[in-house]
Amino acid sequence: MIKKIEHLGIAVENIEESIKIYEALLGTTCYKVEAVESEGVKTAFLQIGESKIELLEATNPESPIAKFLSKKGKGIHHIAFDTDNIVSEIERLKNEGFELIHQTPKDGADNKIIAFLHPKSTDGILVELCQERV
Amino acid sequence: MIKKIEHLGIAVENIEESIKIYEALLGTTCYKVEAVESEGVKTAFLQIGESKIELLEATNPESPIAKFLSKKGKGIHHIAFDTDNIVSEIERLKNEGFELIHQTPKDGADNKIIAFLHPKSTDGILVELCQERV
Repeated sequence: MIKKIEHLGIAVENIEESIKIYEALLGTTCYKVEAVESEGVKTAFLQIGESKIELLEATNPESPIAKFLSKKGKGIHHIAFDTDNIVSEIERLKNEGFELIHQTPKDGADNKIIAFLHPKSTDGILVELCQERV
Repeated sequence: MIKKIEHLGIAVENIEESIKIYEALLGTTCYKVEAVESEGVKTAFLQIGESKIELLEATNPESPIAKFLSKKGKGIHHIAFDTDNIVSEIERLKNEGFELIHQTPKDGADNKIIAFLHPKSTDGILVELCQERV
């Protein structure tokens, strides 16, 4: 089942500047900066309640974040929901008629396995499922 | 202080269809549908963990949601953060250099008092502060 909003992914142009803005906004400190080479992104995480803000900067022009920024500008890129069992959740959502970008989980940032749903089946929103890697 | 993500506001074209999509996605039931005449919106809420998804449909062409849809299309419209004291949080954020759209709290949906920050001071994201009305 889906338990909570695990994080919001926010596309930014300059992650160092954005970290300062979000630290001041939320009154908290960024606890991790991590590059995900396979996605062409640099990520930064801030905790807020049970959820996180994930800032995303493109590290190359082919990155999905670079394409998002050029098409839509800075803004919220995706919502990630935490699941207790990502494999069964993928099956449940396929049976509900949702289209999965990833049929099986793959490695993501922040010690997670992840799968994305296609925005055309989720009302235009890019949705990520994730589960803590064990 | 900011305690958690209170809700994510998502702009939709047809709230009845979107409620069905989000109910299937999250495996939960919409618990409230509420019109906010002053904002020209119909809202629908789904709980997920400590946070909510707020679906927003425009009820007239002058609604901020109608303008957002025509400019950006369906998608995440704002992030709302829960505060224990919205008045002191407004003061804290003004002192940090953030620009407030509302200098004092006003009534919002779902039994809240709210204030919005200007996106130009929050890295392009529309941010709402809210506090439960007592």
